Amino acid sequence: MTYSISPLGDDLTDALQQKIDAKTKPPGALGRIEALALQIGRIQQSLTPALKNPHVVIFAGDHGAAKAGVSAYPQDVTWQMVENFLAGGAAINVFARQAGLGLRIVDAGVAHDFGARDGLIDAKIAPGTANYLDAPAMSAAQRDAAIARGRAIAHELADEGCNALGFGEMGIGNTAAASLLTHCLTGAPLALVVGRGSGLDDIGLSHKQTVLCKALARGGRPRDALGTLAEYGGFEIAMLTGAMLGAAERRMLLVIDGFITTAALLVAHALAPAITEYCVFAHSSQERGNSHQLGWFNARPLLTLGMRLGEGTGAALAWPLLNAATGFLNEMANFDSASVSRKMG
Amino acid sequence: MTYSISPLGDDLTDALQQKIDAKTKPPGALGRIEALALQIGRIQQSLTPALKNPHVVIFAGDHGAAKAGVSAYPQDVTWQMVENFLAGGAAINVFARQAGLGLRIVDAGVAHDFGARDGLIDAKIAPGTANYLDAPAMSAAQRDAAIARGRAIAHELADEGCNALGFGEMGIGNTAAASLLTHCLTGAPLALVVGRGSGLDDIGLSHKQTVLCKALARGGRPRDALGTLAEYGGFEIAMLTGAMLGAAERRMLLVIDGFITTAALLVAHALAPAITEYCVFAHSSQERGNSHQLGWFNARPLLTLGMRLGEGTGAALAWPLLNAATGFLNEMANFDSASVSRKMG
Repeated sequence: MTYSISPLGDDLTDALQQKIDAKTKPPGALGRIEALALQIGRIQQSLTPALKNPHVVIFAGDHGAAKAGVSAYPQDVTWQMVENFLAGGAAINVFARQAGLGLRIVDAGVAHDFGARDGLIDAKIAPGTANYLDAPAMSAAQRDAAIARGRAIAHELADEGCNALGFGEMGIGNTAAASLLTHCLTGAPLALVVGRGSGLDDIGLSHKQTVLCKALARGGRPRDALGTLAEYGGFEIAMLTGAMLGAAERRMLLVIDGFITTAALLVAHALAPAITEYCVFAHSSQERGNSHQLGWFNARPLLTLGMRLGEGTGAALAWPLLNAATGFLNEMANFDSASVSRKMG
Repeated sequence: MTYSISPLGDDLTDALQQKIDAKTKPPGALGRIEALALQIGRIQQSLTPALKNPHVVIFAGDHGAAKAGVSAYPQDVTWQMVENFLAGGAAINVFARQAGLGLRIVDAGVAHDFGARDGLIDAKIAPGTANYLDAPAMSAAQRDAAIARGRAIAHELADEGCNALGFGEMGIGNTAAASLLTHCLTGAPLALVVGRGSGLDDIGLSHKQTVLCKALARGGRPRDALGTLAEYGGFEIAMLTGAMLGAAERRMLLVIDGFITTAALLVAHALAPAITEYCVFAHSSQERGNSHQLGWFNARPLLTLGMRLGEGTGAALAWPLLNAATGFLNEMANFDSASVSRKMG
């Protein structure tokens, strides 16, 4: 499978920069908001870019390794939080509502039978992955199905006019999977990219590191990203990967959340390196390992607020900055129209 | 004149923290958003705080020293930008609209006759300050009038139900005045707190430093904050100081913007130290000296985006994070109501 993701190209770069510099402000005075406007304009190939029908999509899945004790919370919290999303009571519901973002909840592989539920997209590959201490987390077929389904979901959103997509996830145990992916795909020492997740204490963190060392002793460091994804990933991570690829294929703006989401991007990037040109890194997560990922991508996150919740909450909180970027570009007066004097000399 | 600004008190601190920790998220997972919720709850003495009728107020004024060449832009830009604010074409208009903030524009002392204008609050103390190379920028009477007028404007907003106020400014030459205030009130070496303002090149920056050294050679380092304000300040800075004091007297949340606004806060803090408990520092400005001010206040800004525009733009861009804080506190489910399992062990 190949993905048709084009580098952005520079057809409009100069024209966009001129438009930015003609606004009634000193050149560069809006800092990174100006850079965002340039990026979004280049993605949309427009001097009047706009974020239309924006959404956050949350993929949820369970992890076989959760039973090995890699999280501070019981596995049931995955499905319980999906119910919370559906009921509108989670942090992402509040933040998405405030930012004017639609929300899609996807069961990518939760170990729970939800039945048919309004508002829940049933894309369940299986009720949780296998435990990577015993066997690969998923088969190649499951992995490919998850990627394909994620890609299709992004394409469906594009067909509905969505051109900006934030990515979130829920899955007890998924920081552990993301740590393994980050270790294998960036070469970072494991200890540097294993963190406390939802709140492990020192003993719990030490146990998590031991578990992940054992997993690596069994599964090794697979030779490529797809192999790594099958060996250690989660269905929600695989589906995130597919959704990112699908979104970039359709020239959406991709708003990357935190540690797990960025792990999925590592896989997507291995498959289609140009994808990062479509990405905004919303925030720097407090979860250990995210700062390493961001450094690996040479990315500067928009927000650093000590958050570590997932769900796409960082993406939703950064959204107003994206609106500010398109807003100033489209709505601000320029020096001539406002009869404001330009810089001297 | 004394200002009745009370320390926040801890009557509700424990109850607020318990409410925050009962939300369906790992304790602390929303990072600084949780700290904001706690602060706003303590300011409003409420477990269900809300930002009501929020506003940004922009004070505009001219500086006699502008004719000494301390800015990259001609002095006329002050009144031209006021016209731009009134016409809705400036960055702060766009960002305030997006964040749902009302906007008040105040002529604190612009060297221009606007006549009676809808939407412009005429609080002109004089058409620009005196040039601090020759004489104190303003008399004690002018300073006190400006502070009193700013305070009254904040009280009027409080009477209209506004409980959260962002502070902005416009004034060619006002980074120079803010540098002098910051030097005198924090003791920082002048060179550390003089920057490029709206875009001076190296020669312009060097000239600005020379001018400010000459000003200090004439006026010295006055013994107190009020004396410093009269010696080097601007009418917009004095009025900002008064507005901040008035806002904190009425237990508003104060959203502090960048370099000039924080210079005004230095004066307000000298008069009423408890004021900082009511403050949120919206962003770290690119203007040299703001990082020193923030360090002096031991403040962590919410945003670091390389901005240096003033107008209250940083305050407006940070506003959605304040809404996120009250939003999660009021709208998120808790573990019991959502039937989500708590942390193990």
